[in-house]
Amino acid sequence: MAATNASDAVEPDQTMSETVMVGKFYGVGLGPGDPELMTLRAHRLISNAAVVAYPALAGAESFARAIAADVITQGAREIVMDVPMTVERAPAQAAYDKGAEEIASALEAGQDVICLCEGDPFFYGSFMYLFMRLSDRYEVEVVPGVTSITTCAARAGMPLVARNERLTVLPGPLPEDELRTRIEGAESVAIMKVGRHLAKIRSVIDKLGFADKAMYVERASLPDEVVLPLREAPEKAPYFSMILLTKGADPWL
Amino acid sequence: MAATNASDAVEPDQTMSETVMVGKFYGVGLGPGDPELMTLRAHRLISNAAVVAYPALAGAESFARAIAADVITQGAREIVMDVPMTVERAPAQAAYDKGAEEIASALEAGQDVICLCEGDPFFYGSFMYLFMRLSDRYEVEVVPGVTSITTCAARAGMPLVARNERLTVLPGPLPEDELRTRIEGAESVAIMKVGRHLAKIRSVIDKLGFADKAMYVERASLPDEVVLPLREAPEKAPYFSMILLTKGADPWL
Repeated sequence: MAATNASDAVEPDQTMSETVMVGKFYGVGLGPGDPELMTLRAHRLISNAAVVAYPALAGAESFARAIAADVITQGAREIVMDVPMTVERAPAQAAYDKGAEEIASALEAGQDVICLCEGDPFFYGSFMYLFMRLSDRYEVEVVPGVTSITTCAARAGMPLVARNERLTVLPGPLPEDELRTRIEGAESVAIMKVGRHLAKIRSVIDKLGFADKAMYVERASLPDEVVLPLREAPEKAPYFSMILLTKGADPWL
Repeated sequence: MAATNASDAVEPDQTMSETVMVGKFYGVGLGPGDPELMTLRAHRLISNAAVVAYPALAGAESFARAIAADVITQGAREIVMDVPMTVERAPAQAAYDKGAEEIASALEAGQDVICLCEGDPFFYGSFMYLFMRLSDRYEVEVVPGVTSITTCAARAGMPLVARNERLTVLPGPLPEDELRTRIEGAESVAIMKVGRHLAKIRSVIDKLGFADKAMYVERASLPDEVVLPLREAPEKAPYFSMILLTKGADPWL
């Protein structure tokens, strides 16, 4: 609108200063672990960040921070959310509440805040808990990242889906019955968060007769990555492990 | 093995020269379209590439090449595969056969070849047709890229999956009945390649009662991006459009 009604006018100085001052909140995907798999945009935002934020689960070192370690500048402020891994929801809720308020304070002080997210912020990422708490009050930009799914496929030399094929992504903790039904009805399947559910998942895939079409990938893109046919997978899997299964007929080309 | 049987020995000079000389074939994901969403690794490989390769579909400009345009060095050789979009398979097969042979010649001459792939090479990418033709003969590295799915979610401000939720990826060209069954049984759904199938998909989602939970995203991350609730989507959609649907209950945190 070129013209402005007198009734729309507010103190112009205040409006101006609010516009200039409030910071922007970024949820930045860092990819699967190899720092070279972060995007140029993630690299630029983190290089220029005065404030970064990230969760640290159950006192462990933050994987997201480790991926970005060489890009975070000396002197950047780090807002660490110490998230306990309890069955009850309240302690984790309180940790995200507290983190959101610290982030809000920095935004109000005119600083941009870069939230470091392993993988992609909206793909099984805890960033969404901060997004829910802050996106109605502040400008938020989500920068997508390379997911573990396509990284595992790349490392396993296993094309995931082509043409009109379907892909189903399942978390390993699902009950055995549901895993069986879902895998049975799917074409290509990625099973995330394998960890302590490996034996259960392997048994389901075995019984369905797809064991020869499945690959096991652990810590994809990291120096200690493991890529094996599911039949040769170890007995114990870390949290960051995945099983890929493609039933697809021969690709037509 | 530290010791070598005499019978294992071949002419050592020849082995050495083969090891040194044969190039490596890279399938490099470039992300959804914004050049800043390519990975640092993709940027480095393309910056240093003496030979790049990419398909151009039905005589159109290559989208992958457009994403990488500012990174490809002057003087780099470009192997363009002109892939016709016909119902019969033979013409496209012939185009990939010819491209694979050109790439093989460059590899044999000791040059690395960087294949430019929009999105991710193994996620609905035509790179897999080259991978199938060349991976048994040459060293291949696949560099994953940011997919359109998480980019659309980021741009729509729509967390895709959390905790133990499932994600189903469906191509829009699937028959109406199958779309209905798949969407009905899913939690979060990404429908790719919407294009001329928009009316059919919209009708399925409408009849299932999920229209208010669906977003439409066109050309995510590009300057002419469109992000709208599905109810407000235009009548005509381009090939690079997607519908996201999350039925998820309230996130618990």
